[in-house]
Parts: sequence; C-alpha cells; structure tokens
Amino acid sequence: MITIAKVKDAENVLKNIVRKTDLIYAQNIIENSNIYLKVENLQVTGSFKVRGASYKISNLSDEDKSKGVIACSAGNHAQGVALASQKNNIKATIFIPATAPISKVEATKKFGAEIKLIDGVYDDAYKAAVEFQKETNGVFVHPFDDVDVIAGQGTIGLEILEQLPDVEAVIVPIGGGGLIAGVAFAIKQLKPSCKVYGVQSQGAGSMYKSFKDKEIIELPSVNTFADGTAVKRPGDLTFDLCQKYVDDIITVSDDEIASAILALMEKQKLVTEGAGALSVAAAMYNKLPIEGKKTVCILSGGNVDVNIISRVISRGLLNSGRLSHLTIELLDKPGQLREVSTIIAEYGANVIRVRHTQGGSNTDINDCFLKISMETRNHEHFKQIQDALTKKGYKITSNIQ
Amino acid sequence: MITIAKVKDAENVLKNIVRKTDLIYAQNIIENSNIYLKVENLQVTGSFKVRGASYKISNLSDEDKSKGVIACSAGNHAQGVALASQKNNIKATIFIPATAPISKVEATKKFGAEIKLIDGVYDDAYKAAVEFQKETNGVFVHPFDDVDVIAGQGTIGLEILEQLPDVEAVIVPIGGGGLIAGVAFAIKQLKPSCKVYGVQSQGAGSMYKSFKDKEIIELPSVNTFADGTAVKRPGDLTFDLCQKYVDDIITVSDDEIASAILALMEKQKLVTEGAGALSVAAAMYNKLPIEGKKTVCILSGGNVDVNIISRVISRGLLNSGRLSHLTIELLDKPGQLREVSTIIAEYGANVIRVRHTQGGSNTDINDCFLKISMETRNHEHFKQIQDALTKKGYKITSNIQ
Repeated sequence: MITIAKVKDAENVLKNIVRKTDLIYAQNIIENSNIYLKVENLQVTGSFKVRGASYKISNLSDEDKSKGVIACSAGNHAQGVALASQKNNIKATIFIPATAPISKVEATKKFGAEIKLIDGVYDDAYKAAVEFQKETNGVFVHPFDDVDVIAGQGTIGLEILEQLPDVEAVIVPIGGGGLIAGVAFAIKQLKPSCKVYGVQSQGAGSMYKSFKDKEIIELPSVNTFADGTAVKRPGDLTFDLCQKYVDDIITVSDDEIASAILALMEKQKLVTEGAGALSVAAAMYNKLPIEGKKTVCILSGGNVDVNIISRVISRGLLNSGRLSHLTIELLDKPGQLREVSTIIAEYGANVIRVRHTQGGSNTDINDCFLKISMETRNHEHFKQIQDALTKKGYKITSNIQ
Repeated sequence: MITIAKVKDAENVLKNIVRKTDLIYAQNIIENSNIYLKVENLQVTGSFKVRGASYKISNLSDEDKSKGVIACSAGNHAQGVALASQKNNIKATIFIPATAPISKVEATKKFGAEIKLIDGVYDDAYKAAVEFQKETNGVFVHPFDDVDVIAGQGTIGLEILEQLPDVEAVIVPIGGGGLIAGVAFAIKQLKPSCKVYGVQSQGAGSMYKSFKDKEIIELPSVNTFADGTAVKRPGDLTFDLCQKYVDDIITVSDDEIASAILALMEKQKLVTEGAGALSVAAAMYNKLPIEGKKTVCILSGGNVDVNIISRVISRGLLNSGRLSHLTIELLDKPGQLREVSTIIAEYGANVIRVRHTQGGSNTDINDCFLKISMETRNHEHFKQIQDALTKKGYKITSNIQ
C-alpha cells in the first residue's frame, strides 16, 4: 500500500540518482497566467521514469537483485530501468521492438543494459520478455502499475510542495497513470486544498474514459502524437488512486499538443516530447479552471526525435498563422513575380520560399503557378495579403500546401 | 572600477529580478567528459543580458531614473533593458532597426518599453538613439562596455562557485566581452585556480584577435551564425579584463555551432541560440584542455528563431551523417524503385522522402532520376548503402541536395 512515509523514503533513496529538477516560472508562455513548469524533461534520461524505476529496484532483496531485472519498452521506461540498474550495480535486460528508433536503442544501451531487439511490435517484445522472465526468474519492472514505482514518481509532488508551498493546482500528463497516481497521492496527503488535474490526449484517453465511467475501460486501439502515453488500459492501482485523489481529467488534441511543444521551445527554450507538453496544452487552451491560480504544469519528458521537432515547428507555425502557403495562378503577362512580391512586402510578410511551376495534367497547357511560403503575423494578416492579391486580379488557387 | 564587493552587491540587487539559473550536469552531451551547463537560456528574457542591464539601471540616481533609459539593440540587450526598466518603474526607449524579426520586437514591447523602429541597419538605429539621447538627456545603457553591466554579468560567476565549488574550468561565449569580463573577474578573485576560457565564432573573432595581438583590433566586417556575438570591436573595459583574467580564447565554426545546438536540443532538451551554444561547441570539438576537468559551459541565451531551428536540425543531421540525400539515375527497366527501396531497407536506413524526376535540359530526354532522403546512422552507414547500390549497377549522380 502506498503511504506518505514510502514517498518520503523514495525521496531519500533517490537523492544520489535523480536530479531535483528546477521549477521555472513561465512568465511568457500564456498571457495573464500564473504557470510554473516542473522540468522533468531535464531529468537524467530525459524523463521522470527514472524515479519510479530507481526506487523499485533499490527496494529489491539481494536475492532478487542478483537475478537481475527485466523490462519491456521502447522509450522512457527503458532508459529509466537501465540507468537505475546501472546505479544499483545489477543486470538489466530490456526487450525492445525492432521497429524502435535507433536513437532510443542507443540511449538505453549507453546505460549498460542488455538489449534484446525483438522482431515485431510492442506486444511481441512483451511476450518475449515474459518468456525470459520465466526462464531467469528475474524481476519484471512494470512501467506504472506498481506501488514502489508510484511512490518514486510521487517524489515530484514533494518537490513541488517544497519549491512552491502556496501552489494551488498541479496539471499532470497521464499514460498508464503512474505519475499522476504518485503526485496526486503525495499532494493530497500534505496539501488537500491543492487541485490535481490529469491530461490525456484525445487519441489515447483510457484513464480519462475510465475516470468518467468510474470503472476501468480498455480501449480497442490508441493513436496519439504523444507516443509516451499510448496505453490501452490504465493500471488497477493507478486507476484506484486517480479515483480517490484526482480532481478532474481532460483531453487535448494532437494539434493542441504540437502548439504547446512549439510554445515551450520558443518562449521557454525547453524541448518536450508529446507527452511532456500535455499539461501546458491543457493550460494554453483553457481546459481547466486555473485562472489566476498558482499552477504547476509537469513537463514529464523531452525525448522527442529531432525530425519530429522540425515537423512540429512547421505545423505549429501553420496552426497559428505564422507560416502561410499560397498558390497563385499567373496571368499571361510579364512582371508578375515582381508585383506579387511587392504586395507581400508592403504588408510586411517575409517570403521564405518561391516555386514557379507549370500546371498538372488537369489544367490548361499554358497555365503557370506561383507557390509562395511566407512568414506572417497571424491568420488575419495572411487574409489581408490574400485580399490585396485578389483585388489586383490574381487568382488564388490554394492557400495550403 | 570593478570590485568583488560590487559583484556581490549586484547579486543582492538582482535577487528579485533575475532567476538563479540551474547548473545541470550534462551526462550525455560529450562522451567521457565532465561538463555542467549554466542554463542562462532559461533566464527571464531568455538570456543573461537582463543581469547587467538590471544592475546598471538600479544604480542610477533618482534624477537619471526620471529621465529614462535608452538602448539600441534588436536582440537580447533590448529585452534585458526593457524588463529591467519595467521592474524599476522607469521609462525605456529602445531603438531597433526595422529589419529586425517581428518576434524580437514583440518580445521587447511586452516588457513595456517604447520601441522606435528605425529604417536601415543597426548603425542607423544607433545614430537615431544617440540623437535621441542628446535631446532627452536620458541614460544610454551600453550593452557591454560598462562597469555596472560587467558586474551584473559577473553574478553568474558567483552562482557557479556556489553551485559547483570544485569547478576547474569555465567556458564563456564572447561577443563584446561583457559576460566573460564579469565572470572571469569574479572567478579569478575567489578561485584563481579555476581556468576561464573564452569562445568566439570564426566569423566574428574581434576579441579573439585582440587578445592574441594584445591590442584592440576592430574588424572591418563580421559574419556569423551566432548573431548575438556579431561585434566588430571589443570594449575597452572588457578587453582589459580579458587580458588580465582570461586564460585563453579560441574560435569555432558555424558548422560546429550548429552541431552544438543540435546536441543540446537532442541530448539535454535545451534550446539555445548560436551565441548560446558557443561554449558547448568548443567542448565538443576538443578546442580546450578540459579533459577530465569539472567544466562549466555557460549557455548564454536561447532566443533563436524557430525557423532557424529547423534549418539547424537539418544541417546538424547532415553534418553527422544522420540525414543523407542521394540522387540515382534510373535504368530503363521496371521494378527499380522497389529494388532500391529493398537495398536501403536491408541496411536499416529509414527513407523519409522520395522524388521521381525527369532530367534537366542538359541530360538525355529519357533520363529519369530518383531523389531519396533517408535517416542513416553515420557517414560510414551511408557509404555502405551507396556501395551496395553501385554494386547492383545503379549510377549515383549526386549524394547531396
């Protein structure tokens, strides 16, 4: 059973393994708000997962330690278990689906774990891990539904209360529920007046649905940009703790998550993964009653592929009208590129790419098109430019690409 | 004159204005190193500049305060002066060249400063600011060559010594030299055994050259990706302090800076601007004798345009062989796309874009080309794929794009 003594014990045990991450006042991220960021994306291994895994492993008996630990994950849990094992001088065997990104496999290897790459998807790797556990009798470290793991994650709650004693609300991302179970428990024990809210992505709302229906719901499938939270069924323990200690759970869309990631990069200089930005997405899009309240958003992790960052930037800029694409059908007369450029410049937009192309097979053989990408201030600004071009006789055939 | 008492006074004055930024052990960034990051990119306003500006402004007489302050900058200094003025309840007028990015102007406006957008480049804005100073008799806040500004930046040195008492080396980015002058002074006063190194970019090495030649050198022009350090002539005060207290100054290339920015994003989840990553670039490329030494890299700022981040990611991935482009001339027979894809897949690379194009005017009318972009592990990995394709009879016409 989880107790506050256990969470405090975890805090003590973790002292030499994990970082006490900073709590940063996010002056710039949302207008007229009072948001603080608990930056677990800057945790060693790039996510909070190392807390729960470390506490779990340090509590094993010497006999269990000698047998080694086993985990199945392609992501943050893998790195957490690997580092925790390294620090405790025990053997870790991590099962990873062979489809996992090279970078995540390399990162886990670096912490000294033995990696078993299994052909297929997560379920195949999981089966192989269970098989291996039976053979070796090693300890299987569950990513969330384990009382020691939950107590380890709960240490974030203790740190928040110490760093911001007058905190009024905490917003926590949810996958399987280990983080919020620990944090909600710790906070409600020590400061019951503080609200604790959970956030899931719309495409993976298993805890959201279970919380609302008051019983565990298993989703047939999950699909979310926040891949760290793609869990079909919440844990039994974590569900119970959410029911008891969480004030509300809401969901956000993939586009809202992308905008939050962009805002965190641009305004707070922090890189977060999809799951890591859920809490800020909830605050940015006014999903929770936190106006004027001293609110902590937990940034759970930052392990995102850099190629995805580029795509998130483009998508976020498009969503907010700061990057705009335009296709113009050119008239059959000279000097048009110059005229179009002049109009755009007059409105203060910044052209970043121009392509001049002939039409496709379904257009007239003489048709020519100008594809322009430009930096704009917002959607309204882009609309003004489109109107000005239309007034001059240009035919806009498409404003997306 | 600068004294350690002045730096300590600055630390006291700044308590309620600036953040005491975290010092983060950068376990992952460079193999077998002992690097700590002083994260001034997470400072309010996204750079260290607010420290010097705040201390300068808080030291003004009431009469001077009533006249307001003036600054000329399109970047971090503008935001620093604006916030410092807001906190001190005085008027700030900031001259910004009209060519500055919209985002920087907006950020400065947010801190309540009056913005004068001046047509032309920096020099034009500077002239207008000097003109305005004569009219209003306000106080011109120099971005670096001012004893109070230097003392303010020096508070970073005090924080480093408190956060890591056994620090052995500190690496500091240099533009005009205000940051390193303050930090080197503070550190050498309190811990003379600690080395202090400076880094400039190759395209803007005015302090580097002056330091080596032992006299102030003004460069005819500067050109660097680290735009925050594009200074043609070091300050008189800052040059003197560098000569006295800095152990060595080296330079890094734009490509090295881009790789450092990418490494900081990917491995440490931190967004830095070009200037902000100079210190890490120096460490990554072994430019300084810091092996095995407890070394602090100051990340001076994070105010980088998000569009530039996308470009840095692509360039950094290309530099390290993790993104590769290939153009193959197709033979006149069916099933070739499939065969090429199969070869690439066998080698474990991940195709992210394929374009099938006809040749240009200087090629045979039947020629067809396949342009492929893929994620690879490193240059060697890409070479293996090229060799395998060549062996199968494919003609590689270009391996860059």
